[in-house]
Amino acid sequence: MSFVNSTLEEIAARVKRARSAVILTHMRPDGDAIGSALALSCALDALGIEHCVCDESELPSNLAFLEGLEKIEKKPDPQAELYIAVDSSDEPRLGALADDFRLAVKKRDTINIDHHVSNTRYAKYNYVRECSANCMNIAALIEAMGVPFNKSMAEYLLLGLLTDSGNFSHDDVTEETFLTAAKLVKAGADIRFLNYNLFKKQPRARAELYADTMSRIRYFLDDKFAAIVITQAAMKKFGADNGMTEGFVDFPLTVDTVEVCASVMEVKKGQYKISLRSKRYADVNKIAGVYGGGGHVRAAGCMLFGDVEEILDKLVYTVSQYL
Amino acid sequence: MSFVNSTLEEIAARVKRARSAVILTHMRPDGDAIGSALALSCALDALGIEHCVCDESELPSNLAFLEGLEKIEKKPDPQAELYIAVDSSDEPRLGALADDFRLAVKKRDTINIDHHVSNTRYAKYNYVRECSANCMNIAALIEAMGVPFNKSMAEYLLLGLLTDSGNFSHDDVTEETFLTAAKLVKAGADIRFLNYNLFKKQPRARAELYADTMSRIRYFLDDKFAAIVITQAAMKKFGADNGMTEGFVDFPLTVDTVEVCASVMEVKKGQYKISLRSKRYADVNKIAGVYGGGGHVRAAGCMLFGDVEEILDKLVYTVSQYL
Repeated sequence: MSFVNSTLEEIAARVKRARSAVILTHMRPDGDAIGSALALSCALDALGIEHCVCDESELPSNLAFLEGLEKIEKKPDPQAELYIAVDSSDEPRLGALADDFRLAVKKRDTINIDHHVSNTRYAKYNYVRECSANCMNIAALIEAMGVPFNKSMAEYLLLGLLTDSGNFSHDDVTEETFLTAAKLVKAGADIRFLNYNLFKKQPRARAELYADTMSRIRYFLDDKFAAIVITQAAMKKFGADNGMTEGFVDFPLTVDTVEVCASVMEVKKGQYKISLRSKRYADVNKIAGVYGGGGHVRAAGCMLFGDVEEILDKLVYTVSQYL
Repeated sequence: MSFVNSTLEEIAARVKRARSAVILTHMRPDGDAIGSALALSCALDALGIEHCVCDESELPSNLAFLEGLEKIEKKPDPQAELYIAVDSSDEPRLGALADDFRLAVKKRDTINIDHHVSNTRYAKYNYVRECSANCMNIAALIEAMGVPFNKSMAEYLLLGLLTDSGNFSHDDVTEETFLTAAKLVKAGADIRFLNYNLFKKQPRARAELYADTMSRIRYFLDDKFAAIVITQAAMKKFGADNGMTEGFVDFPLTVDTVEVCASVMEVKKGQYKISLRSKRYADVNKIAGVYGGGGHVRAAGCMLFGDVEEILDKLVYTVSQYL
């Protein structure tokens, strides 16, 4: 079997022919993964195709406001005729469901719709196109299938667009990003509801942990490197949990002199999860790589062990090599 | 002379006929005012119409990154054939330039292009249409004049769109908002540059004042009312100034229980500028009105005098009447 790129029209035709399907997405799913899967599920509903939506992970607490999450199951139906993976660059990203997908590739038709440049084309039908969010690809597929957007579908798609584009702030935002958003808003997606729930709502415990953490930003290397430390004690003090620290690393990076920021989060005594971000030129993938971690040029991570002051010393030294 | 609504086509035709013009906008201009004025100026440049751009106020420091601000003058050319006010709901909003405009209305043609529902139609030609940003009206006018968008023009227009729509988060964001953004990005507007400079960049002094202020949020009325106090002493401590407190009032409002937030900023000893915000239902225009202030239902302000703890007591009582 040759694994090649397919057109959206070919994929649309294959999906419409199916009597049953499984939609699955990557482990630790984000807004774009969940949005892609649930929007496609609405489209299959509209076409009367029996299906289930599967993900191996717990669903992220910041998306708990979303209706329809309860639709997502842990294990796919092994009898389904068609397996569709969305927003997943390769099979291992499917986590515990990778084996199910591999098995499906051998026995039945599979589809892979993604926007990551690194996608390995692991299905029979592959549609991979770089864009702000995979939800833009799903929106195009739904149009190719001739299904009109309804409010739910539009809201799931806009969820992916908002989260993966950083609320329209990333490099890859284009005319098409906004044209897609226009269609989704026209179809009834409530952007204010999504915006509020995604970006402007937090429990008091998070607000308190946030302010406390930011009041103790540490600056190094002529203020080009900033670090925040989040201890278990602080989380306990404010009644916050790990999940609430999402986005903390972005605040010190807004300081105009700062090129690299590190969030040093205590996982347990003597173990720290390091999240690194850079603004313009520093390669934090390489910085994380020094400690066995990795990621992207502008966002990466690693684990470090020991005393927090020693860890900061190490990071300052390593960061200084890449500024 | 009857003051009526004109069509964009009538206004476009009148502008194109002019040999000289003045563009002016409201006092304490924001991104939408500056964006409207400078984008229209680019269009007049393209049409070869001699003109100047005027505003009575100091320009806001958060827009200092913008090229072309130096174009803005303090006084209009009294000989100009056409006076065009943008983003100004009435003449008094023009501040020190209101008299110049009133004089112009008597002697020559005037145009008023605005998106505020309360606009008083104070010019000979008035185009008032509610939308996310007045820059959407200016974009439509530029199209009606047959001038293609260039990068500068598109960037000024997108500036207004981003600031007045709260980065696409406000109630009035529609399909047209996104269709306009799509055109502007297509014309070369660098959305990442604007987004970074408008929403994600701050001096260290601001970051420190911000974190310090947010670590001392006061909660009242079952956490439905939150208040922050910004003292001159704190600003001095971190080397911050009044202008840096823009947006502070939004953070406490993100706490899920909070319906009303007040920022209590010390102007000088015993005098406090109160900014009020509400989330869903409380009318802060009425709350501010109790103290001789005003504004809108979701955003208003007033001045209060005396001891800060007494001021907080007063506010807690008044807010409790509107929850």
